[in-house]
Amino acid sequence: MKLVDVLHMNGGMGDISYANNSLVQRKAIILTKPIIEQAMSDLYNNLLPETLCIADLGCSSGANTFLVVSELIKTVEKERRKHEFHSSDFHFLFNDLPSNDFNTIFQSLGEFEHNLRKQTGEKFAPCFFSGVPGSFYTRLFPSNSLHFIHSSYSLHWLSQVPDLIEKNKGNVYMSSTSPPSVIKAYYKQYEKDFTNFLKYRSEELMKGGKMVLTFLGRESEDPSSKDGGYIWELLSMALNELVVEGLIEEEKVDSFNIPNYTSSPAEVKYIVEKEGSFTINRLETTRVHWNYASNNNDIINGGYNLSRCMRAVAEPLLISQFGTKLMDLVFQKYEKIITDCMAKEETEFINVTVSLTKKK
Amino acid sequence: MKLVDVLHMNGGMGDISYANNSLVQRKAIILTKPIIEQAMSDLYNNLLPETLCIADLGCSSGANTFLVVSELIKTVEKERRKHEFHSSDFHFLFNDLPSNDFNTIFQSLGEFEHNLRKQTGEKFAPCFFSGVPGSFYTRLFPSNSLHFIHSSYSLHWLSQVPDLIEKNKGNVYMSSTSPPSVIKAYYKQYEKDFTNFLKYRSEELMKGGKMVLTFLGRESEDPSSKDGGYIWELLSMALNELVVEGLIEEEKVDSFNIPNYTSSPAEVKYIVEKEGSFTINRLETTRVHWNYASNNNDIINGGYNLSRCMRAVAEPLLISQFGTKLMDLVFQKYEKIITDCMAKEETEFINVTVSLTKKK
Repeated sequence: MKLVDVLHMNGGMGDISYANNSLVQRKAIILTKPIIEQAMSDLYNNLLPETLCIADLGCSSGANTFLVVSELIKTVEKERRKHEFHSSDFHFLFNDLPSNDFNTIFQSLGEFEHNLRKQTGEKFAPCFFSGVPGSFYTRLFPSNSLHFIHSSYSLHWLSQVPDLIEKNKGNVYMSSTSPPSVIKAYYKQYEKDFTNFLKYRSEELMKGGKMVLTFLGRESEDPSSKDGGYIWELLSMALNELVVEGLIEEEKVDSFNIPNYTSSPAEVKYIVEKEGSFTINRLETTRVHWNYASNNNDIINGGYNLSRCMRAVAEPLLISQFGTKLMDLVFQKYEKIITDCMAKEETEFINVTVSLTKKK
Repeated sequence: MKLVDVLHMNGGMGDISYANNSLVQRKAIILTKPIIEQAMSDLYNNLLPETLCIADLGCSSGANTFLVVSELIKTVEKERRKHEFHSSDFHFLFNDLPSNDFNTIFQSLGEFEHNLRKQTGEKFAPCFFSGVPGSFYTRLFPSNSLHFIHSSYSLHWLSQVPDLIEKNKGNVYMSSTSPPSVIKAYYKQYEKDFTNFLKYRSEELMKGGKMVLTFLGRESEDPSSKDGGYIWELLSMALNELVVEGLIEEEKVDSFNIPNYTSSPAEVKYIVEKEGSFTINRLETTRVHWNYASNNNDIINGGYNLSRCMRAVAEPLLISQFGTKLMDLVFQKYEKIITDCMAKEETEFINVTVSLTKKK
């Protein structure tokens, strides 16, 4: 089943949105600001468009949706002033799955723009906003219509659960106990999806157009390593406890897999070069402590906060496999496991950020 | 107060949508098909774009939203085949106020496109869809970004209730008993709004781009004539009955005015020429019997159906002036008055359709 179908089935993007608007993502947006600044400066310098067309893929519909827009607009304005470029109109395109709550975005735009103009002194050019529903693993925009594509905390989602020829026994994601065929199938799905993503985006970007993509990844070259999939390994542990308690059939855990892939910079580099449409300008990793799922005042509840955040992401998928009844129990166990783990270990998410320019 | 504010206040566009998706509008869309066909044929012949960018202003979110898209796509495809032009991608932009239910449109697009391709044999090019929230009395789209603008049953709405210096005693719209200053104020508001509309659209259309606009209007040159405002005159009658019964204060009716203007072809011609950005290709009126608010099998309930349809349009505005409690009573009276009137007279809506080309 495709992820899109699961999410539709469960009306799940509302929940996914919550996670996408997590404080972890907020931190990631701020961490990647210098990379975006450099890309935008280069873009502006080379293209000087009358209207700057920017798309945010997987925009969700919460605080981070607007944080992305305001950071991008402020960055452009800063670069423009620094280099004394002429002013461009902004065309900002919000993309997410059709089940995303676009109504909420649209109804908040007036106030958002008003506040942004107040903050920045009303000095920037007209902004046009539109919503574009659809999966970014399909074509979304007309050919040669975009200057800049941004995506944050969305591209680690695959278009579907990989086709596995062996059971991924006791795991919901790749782990050290997964059979090699499972690791291979996950990678194949990722390679296919990311290649399509690059191909479609290269059709949509103008010549010299740029992308800055940030997603959950890993630093290790081992796809089953902890630094990519530890958070899912802990979910497997919670589910396996319920198997031991006889509340979930073992078979159900064995056949459940999260359609996610946390890639390494080397894998990203390999696929980008193989696909061939883009030049890599920068490819970096940053680390965000699991505690960033909490407000600063609330680090003591880090496990609780992160498990809530993960519940928002994973629950729609879990419900489709295990039903709704056990969800409270699953996430109580998950919270406890996460809390214990955070007390004992240095737990961090790895973000991979890649800045790309369309070749021709 | 601006119409937009009233609608927001009452969460009213959902209701407005219903009316906008009335059978009367459906009939109007079908009646204006030859005019759209000619405009599209000329456009295609002259511009031959790689991606044909079409916006529908005041798209609403129901059956007619999709009827407009499918009619436009079918028309383009028919013209393309007739003249053996190369195939263009479609970029279709849905516009309405931010309170419109864009989520419903976006969630229906997949099925809509699937069915359309099945109907037409999958022969047409890729379609890209986006939603653009905002009032069409402001700029909505980037400069020179559109080829074709369509609007049906929306442009008779003014951006706000006209500023009146005298009371429009006993009336909710212009009528034969309205003071000349009221008639003048209504026209001034219309002239200002329609001039702004033309100016903004001319900035957004490419050179040679076209618009086909259909709205409720009149044939008489007298703005207070029955053929433009009869349906509102009957609403005034219903409200005045409640004044007589002591249920509504007279003052409240006297100070309530519908932000609507049913213009004549001569007024449209005058404003288009004065504004100067567009050439008029065709300017026509068509008539739709009030019974078209009913299904074919249900003409006997014409009064009921039309009053329901009008309730959807007018209720949000009426509630802001008179409160919710009296609404059932108002519309019971309105239905009776409409029914009596339809039994005695030939009652028709006048549609004005204008086809325009951007000059330079």
